[in-house]
Amino acid sequence: MIKIGIFGYGNLGRGVELAVKNAEDMELVAVFTRRDPKSVSINTPNVPIVSAKDVEDWKDKIDVMVLCGGSATDLPKQTPELAKYFNVIDSFDTHAKIPEHFAAVDKAAKDAGKLAMISVGWDPGMFSVMRLFGNAILPNGKDYTFWGTGVSQGHSDAVRRIEGVKNAKQYTVPKQAALDAVRSGKNPDLTTREKHERICYVVAKKGADKAKIEAEIKNMPNYFADYDTTVHFIDEETFNREHSGLAHGGFVIRSGKTGDNTHIMEFNLKLDSNPEFTTSVLIAYARAIYKLKGEGQRGCKTIFDVPPAYLSPLSGEELRAHLL
Amino acid sequence: MIKIGIFGYGNLGRGVELAVKNAEDMELVAVFTRRDPKSVSINTPNVPIVSAKDVEDWKDKIDVMVLCGGSATDLPKQTPELAKYFNVIDSFDTHAKIPEHFAAVDKAAKDAGKLAMISVGWDPGMFSVMRLFGNAILPNGKDYTFWGTGVSQGHSDAVRRIEGVKNAKQYTVPKQAALDAVRSGKNPDLTTREKHERICYVVAKKGADKAKIEAEIKNMPNYFADYDTTVHFIDEETFNREHSGLAHGGFVIRSGKTGDNTHIMEFNLKLDSNPEFTTSVLIAYARAIYKLKGEGQRGCKTIFDVPPAYLSPLSGEELRAHLL
Repeated sequence: MIKIGIFGYGNLGRGVELAVKNAEDMELVAVFTRRDPKSVSINTPNVPIVSAKDVEDWKDKIDVMVLCGGSATDLPKQTPELAKYFNVIDSFDTHAKIPEHFAAVDKAAKDAGKLAMISVGWDPGMFSVMRLFGNAILPNGKDYTFWGTGVSQGHSDAVRRIEGVKNAKQYTVPKQAALDAVRSGKNPDLTTREKHERICYVVAKKGADKAKIEAEIKNMPNYFADYDTTVHFIDEETFNREHSGLAHGGFVIRSGKTGDNTHIMEFNLKLDSNPEFTTSVLIAYARAIYKLKGEGQRGCKTIFDVPPAYLSPLSGEELRAHLL
Repeated sequence: MIKIGIFGYGNLGRGVELAVKNAEDMELVAVFTRRDPKSVSINTPNVPIVSAKDVEDWKDKIDVMVLCGGSATDLPKQTPELAKYFNVIDSFDTHAKIPEHFAAVDKAAKDAGKLAMISVGWDPGMFSVMRLFGNAILPNGKDYTFWGTGVSQGHSDAVRRIEGVKNAKQYTVPKQAALDAVRSGKNPDLTTREKHERICYVVAKKGADKAKIEAEIKNMPNYFADYDTTVHFIDEETFNREHSGLAHGGFVIRSGKTGDNTHIMEFNLKLDSNPEFTTSVLIAYARAIYKLKGEGQRGCKTIFDVPPAYLSPLSGEELRAHLL
């Protein structure tokens, strides 16, 4: 059995717990939290909940530590730090900072003789692999990535920071006309506005100026100004009932030519729960880390470095007979 | 430059030639044919066309030999035979015989210190990778593979063998209702008849009994009896004008659950030319063979054994910065 540790017990931590339960070759050995362990309860019986401060004591008891913190401030510190003691995997998703994060984690893991993997999930993650497949197979072509329909955390936060806003959720919605144009093989040049629209559900504070809030959202640079944005004001009860879901998804489409012929490769995801799917990917790649470490690999890897066979509990022979 | 040889110059051979032209890090060094080389002309200037009998003379001049023969009788002999002299790759697609073919090629390649890869294309190939991803990431789920709309060579051949048939093409068409049911996450159990329909375009010989031909097609066991089959009789001119295309495609869908949540992963292809896409995949994996061989790998591999990064001419650093 592959021994898994969870570092951080929020939505992602709970997702990892569920994914380990679905994996017949893995067991959860401990959950680490920065909170008071007594204040945390988990869904798996007989698994210790340990203070993050004591994590070093577990260095010989865990095959792969799954980091479940956030990309903004947690992972840039935690992943290199924990790579000193454990084989680690994270879902770091700040695309622009991946090279920097990779370098820090690679150094820590190499110095300690550990194996690490960063940016595993669906984007970055499965979507990245699909972009790579598309580029390598159809070099004479163009990539398109669409996200949604789903909640964007960063955009929801931006709306919540506006004066007079009590609560808000922002949905990113791919435009059907853009998807259709890409799927037709026409390789359109699409503006930001043509690819996605943004829909906000806002609970305003009592007496707030709704027209002002709406204008402030729609004109917010980077976040909303370049998009068609719709703002719906709703009451708190409706908000809690209808907008607490974690569904998400998206599309990666490669449209390329060989001679005069056009080919479309499309990968799409429709996810009821963004964190539960992300952690399902994490756990499949945690299995790969365990196997690659066993073969003597060290340092930091990404999803690009892993042979697909390493994700599966089946043997090469079984895979060739049943899935090839 | 990676030196590529083409063994067999039909639709696949021409596709490899085109894919090599699209690859900036490859060059075509020779085309081998079982025909009289003087009777063959290719699209690339200054590349020798060589008799298959003389292939051994080229053993030190080619990095990867791409085999472009058929799966029924060519590849089971050619791939192990050529693996004695070359690193080889083929698109062997008789799913049931893959383990047997793998064993023969693996032995030949290991004995000779060569690296081989079999069953590379889209199914087997990219579709196989997608099935593996789906199974590994969502173990509690179900796989669906749909093919089409496209010509099935085997079924077209079967129709052409019927008495009174002059020419015929058979299209495999996925049923929209089945696709919709799978995408809804309901995990339906679908019969053969519910998944695909078969549409035949037949040119009958003069005076042939069309009703008899139609009945014979529709009742043919294994090939048609379990499907809804439509037969259209058309004249030869229409046949040649409208049914000489090589378009194909298909869908791999994994529908799986984590707890109470359902997730759908879908990969689909819409290809103007089946052989040109197949060979685009072959050429990306030929690049991987070249790199893996350089690292000392030997024997037979499949698409499951290749880290995605090996398909790309870009460095790990470039891939992480631009595609992750």
